[in-house]
Amino acid sequence: MEEDLLMVDDDCLFCRIVSGEVPATMVYVDQNTVAFLDHRPLFHGHTLLVPREHVETLTDLSPALVEPLFTAAQSIARAVELAMKAEGTFVAMNNRVSQSVPHLHVHIVPRRRKDGLKGFFWPRTKYKDESEMKIVQRQIAGALQELSR
Amino acid sequence: MEEDLLMVDDDCLFCRIVSGEVPATMVYVDQNTVAFLDHRPLFHGHTLLVPREHVETLTDLSPALVEPLFTAAQSIARAVELAMKAEGTFVAMNNRVSQSVPHLHVHIVPRRRKDGLKGFFWPRTKYKDESEMKIVQRQIAGALQELSR
Repeated sequence: MEEDLLMVDDDCLFCRIVSGEVPATMVYVDQNTVAFLDHRPLFHGHTLLVPREHVETLTDLSPALVEPLFTAAQSIARAVELAMKAEGTFVAMNNRVSQSVPHLHVHIVPRRRKDGLKGFFWPRTKYKDESEMKIVQRQIAGALQELSR
Repeated sequence: MEEDLLMVDDDCLFCRIVSGEVPATMVYVDQNTVAFLDHRPLFHGHTLLVPREHVETLTDLSPALVEPLFTAAQSIARAVELAMKAEGTFVAMNNRVSQSVPHLHVHIVPRRRKDGLKGFFWPRTKYKDESEMKIVQRQIAGALQELSR
């Protein structure tokens, strides 16, 4: 991607890391993406992967950058697991809510069984009945249709 | 993708949902992916997006399926947010650890501020000092090199 075509937000911490203005502990760079260690990790090796271009959330990422970003995420997940002798990884994006920096970033976190994070996917809730579930189904399917128009 | 070329695991719950053998509350289907409501959601509208092909984790996903899967994730994140009148989304994959079904699935969860999930990205840990951070950097960068050979 040509530097002069890159959308950049001068006030954005991650744009400043991408440009080199703010130092970070880089683990990976390519034409479209940059990855560095989160300085307050969930566990050591917790990496943040960002597109060089300034986009706020996953849904704002341009179609051409989807493959480069997630192919990089695959490579980094493999490497983080190997490097940290982990048993698995947690790969996640917070879009707007719980998103500390409004520049899309993929968290890539090494995981081990009984590492203390087990609980975060709980408590779950439930649907009252089948019909409540079907209402939600129609709402989401309807939104998909609306958005594809 | 041709049905007869599809890698399928007969014992896999999500393969059986993809094939239609086990019913699920579908919200989206395309040539490569299927999305349905999680029946024990974090919040109503919590959707699971899976590749039709049986792969266990993100790193096992074939290069040709990276763009189809995450482009679908973008569409569904937009739709879930709109449909559930949410303020954002949480998009995540558990690879092996905390992964209930060993068939890659992307959780797409509607989020609202103060919805009670705020805490799951905590507590964070830290690096003792700069040099401890640099050791981890070298380990991950080294693993990336090793894996790219």
